[in-house]
Amino acid sequence: MKNKAITSREVDFAKWYTDVVKAAHLADYSNVKGCIVFEPRGYALWEMIQKTMDKMFKETGHQNVYMPLLIPESLMKKEGELINGFAPEVAWVTQGGDKELDERLCIRPTSETLFSDYYSHVVKSYRDLPLKYNQWCSVMRWEKETRPFLRSREFLWQEGHTIHETREEAEEETHKMLDIYRQFFEEYLAIPVITGKKTEKEKFAGAEYTLTVEALMYNGISLQSATSHYFGQKFAKAYDISFKDRNNALSYCYQTSWGSTTRMIGAMIMVHSDDNGLVLPPKIAPTQVVIVPIQMSENVQKKSEEVKKILEDAGITVDIDQSEKSAGFKFAEAEVNGIPLRIEIGKRDLEDHKIIVTRRDTREKQVVSFEENIGEVVTQILDRMQKEMFFRAKERRDSFTFTCHNLEEVKIQMEKQPGFIHAMWCGDEACENRMKEIKGTKSRCILEDGEKIDTHCVVCGKEAKYHVVWGVQY
Amino acid sequence: MKNKAITSREVDFAKWYTDVVKAAHLADYSNVKGCIVFEPRGYALWEMIQKTMDKMFKETGHQNVYMPLLIPESLMKKEGELINGFAPEVAWVTQGGDKELDERLCIRPTSETLFSDYYSHVVKSYRDLPLKYNQWCSVMRWEKETRPFLRSREFLWQEGHTIHETREEAEEETHKMLDIYRQFFEEYLAIPVITGKKTEKEKFAGAEYTLTVEALMYNGISLQSATSHYFGQKFAKAYDISFKDRNNALSYCYQTSWGSTTRMIGAMIMVHSDDNGLVLPPKIAPTQVVIVPIQMSENVQKKSEEVKKILEDAGITVDIDQSEKSAGFKFAEAEVNGIPLRIEIGKRDLEDHKIIVTRRDTREKQVVSFEENIGEVVTQILDRMQKEMFFRAKERRDSFTFTCHNLEEVKIQMEKQPGFIHAMWCGDEACENRMKEIKGTKSRCILEDGEKIDTHCVVCGKEAKYHVVWGVQY
Repeated sequence: MKNKAITSREVDFAKWYTDVVKAAHLADYSNVKGCIVFEPRGYALWEMIQKTMDKMFKETGHQNVYMPLLIPESLMKKEGELINGFAPEVAWVTQGGDKELDERLCIRPTSETLFSDYYSHVVKSYRDLPLKYNQWCSVMRWEKETRPFLRSREFLWQEGHTIHETREEAEEETHKMLDIYRQFFEEYLAIPVITGKKTEKEKFAGAEYTLTVEALMYNGISLQSATSHYFGQKFAKAYDISFKDRNNALSYCYQTSWGSTTRMIGAMIMVHSDDNGLVLPPKIAPTQVVIVPIQMSENVQKKSEEVKKILEDAGITVDIDQSEKSAGFKFAEAEVNGIPLRIEIGKRDLEDHKIIVTRRDTREKQVVSFEENIGEVVTQILDRMQKEMFFRAKERRDSFTFTCHNLEEVKIQMEKQPGFIHAMWCGDEACENRMKEIKGTKSRCILEDGEKIDTHCVVCGKEAKYHVVWGVQY
Repeated sequence: MKNKAITSREVDFAKWYTDVVKAAHLADYSNVKGCIVFEPRGYALWEMIQKTMDKMFKETGHQNVYMPLLIPESLMKKEGELINGFAPEVAWVTQGGDKELDERLCIRPTSETLFSDYYSHVVKSYRDLPLKYNQWCSVMRWEKETRPFLRSREFLWQEGHTIHETREEAEEETHKMLDIYRQFFEEYLAIPVITGKKTEKEKFAGAEYTLTVEALMYNGISLQSATSHYFGQKFAKAYDISFKDRNNALSYCYQTSWGSTTRMIGAMIMVHSDDNGLVLPPKIAPTQVVIVPIQMSENVQKKSEEVKKILEDAGITVDIDQSEKSAGFKFAEAEVNGIPLRIEIGKRDLEDHKIIVTRRDTREKQVVSFEENIGEVVTQILDRMQKEMFFRAKERRDSFTFTCHNLEEVKIQMEKQPGFIHAMWCGDEACENRMKEIKGTKSRCILEDGEKIDTHCVVCGKEAKYHVVWGVQY
């Protein structure tokens, strides 16, 4: 039984992806080029992600704020590298009402400049530090090619911006937030990730260094999934974020920023979903269980309500599909929407004192008797599903992970099957550029304590400095 | 004991307001004209409002979505009244990256056009109806004069947009959402409100009619606090939101929209706060109780933690102020930040087996013995405070509510003390304009079943049709 609205992912992965987005009603194209409409099922996923991450941020001492949408050009230009990095892709407001503006304003592509400006006003003393703020908002980057969730002109994200008294504290924050992202990806999205440092060529405009979370999609393409930047005192000097230090001398703050976006929804789709539609990790699914009554009767209705109540008391989110559609239609709909578990309850089941629980990912069925503790059993199935989804994704990722010792090996591998390639690098940008000629292979990250595979660079053969993971990117 | 950073509200209400906003660290002015920075304490209030309202919306069958930030001019222009109403006050994007755009795009001032366009794509049959969507986002209106939370170029809000099969259902929705707003204002914000219909002159551009929630501030000025619009088929016809009805004929949807904004934070300040800073209704306060240990010792520390745990178990949000400031300083800080209850715990209190609970609004103190159920007692104090804040606001509102029978009475009253004026109206716009000459007095709303005060219009003396509440607006 295969969903006919969805192209097989083995046949055309790109088409499969957009088919799943459409069939599961996650997003729709809008009248505004390069911008999507987040439909209820898509936005509900973002709400689940937000709720979970927001809790993790608050538990680590971060507070939410909201900065303006627009940035005056002069403010944007105070730090040269950032504006150079973003200028080609920002949207400019030049008219307010019926008047031309004296100065154009860009719609934020990222908010380092606004946070820096604000911090420069409020920080006076080391006693005011650290400030650890985050905001949930939309940003705009004038991209040419766009794909729902993966790359669009407007996207939703969170951006954390913190300032600290010392280099050590700021660097610790940069690493801590990377670790929170890693934890979120692995424990909630069930996506295994590699973390490390971006090369100079690939780092964020204006950062001293960028740490990154990299994931591998089902088809072996890499996705940069979240980043955490260390700025040193660069913005602090450009925007004058100074403070009286413990010796009563004037000092500049050390700064970080870190962000993750609605692209995470795209990652979930491309790692877990299949030819029948969405597959969601139970911890992120807005609805975890759908009860499908078979041939509704008063008793079936009553039992459905009762099971719903039991599951809700166990902290599980449940819907009963009461619509007048056929059971087969309801099953297909639950599948395409990626509801982790389906529970069928029919007349016969009532007689047999049982319900049938079917997993979305494996289609495994489990019979649960009324005599069992249904809440506990279903919780266990959900937990097992969450763990197995992670391990399946990890197995696939590992089977697409290769070690290469020279350019020829990289070429053969990337032509056969793209994936993560582990190889040594000398640190020279020219070698990165040579790699890119092979099907666009780019450095994903430098492993912070990677094994020394070879003594020579995979490209030029000169002395190697870094263990780098390479891949073809979205 | 009076907070010196805050001007007295009896001396200069406008200055008092901005002083409270600054002193409680709710918002800061930004580098972007007419836009504010929501600081952590200000944004936390918005999060509390959002959480509470979002639950009310979801419980009444609404789903969240997210529409694009930008609206192409041609799409905006499809419905003439809306664009005429908003054109003078939108921000226009004319450049993307380094290119001039073929068509300018406005930053949404409101999203009827985008929702209508989306609905026109997805609705086919009466079976698809109703669709009841809401979004939380920021909007932009190019205002000339701005004040934090009350009027700014960018503000945060929610906008609900629903489409229905029948006029009756859509009108019911318009009224139901008005009632949800009323309930939210009265039960959570502790602000008594008047609800009714806007006159033709004051209704939303493009609406058949607008229902409104009107509140009176401490100084007698009115604030339009939330609105709910009925559009009939106007947008449906302009944007072609049609469907096959039950008779298989083509029909147009009936539509509503309703919105409320960060202005609600301004309303809370102007109704409840005082010369010592913020006063917050307990149900909306992000932190409900602050524990101030007096002369910290191991035992005081232990007891503070213990009380915190007891209160948290009772569902109360609690902070312990562990900073090294003096107790007096901590008290003043808790006051200015509007934390509803302060609990002092000192060495002497431990010996006496008691804690002292002080209310922010009335400064009433209550001694609670360790032998009492502290969680229950504090919950009761919070409940009582919430109720009493509402009744105090209502008493003041009522004492500023007047009935007038002719223009002279209106003039005398508005010069003496502005407030809500109940008076009859003939329905003629010329009479509204005459009223406006009296210190800017405007119709707030027509009461839907208001008592017939007189048979004649308060302005022209001709036959009266409506019982109107009038006031001077923010």
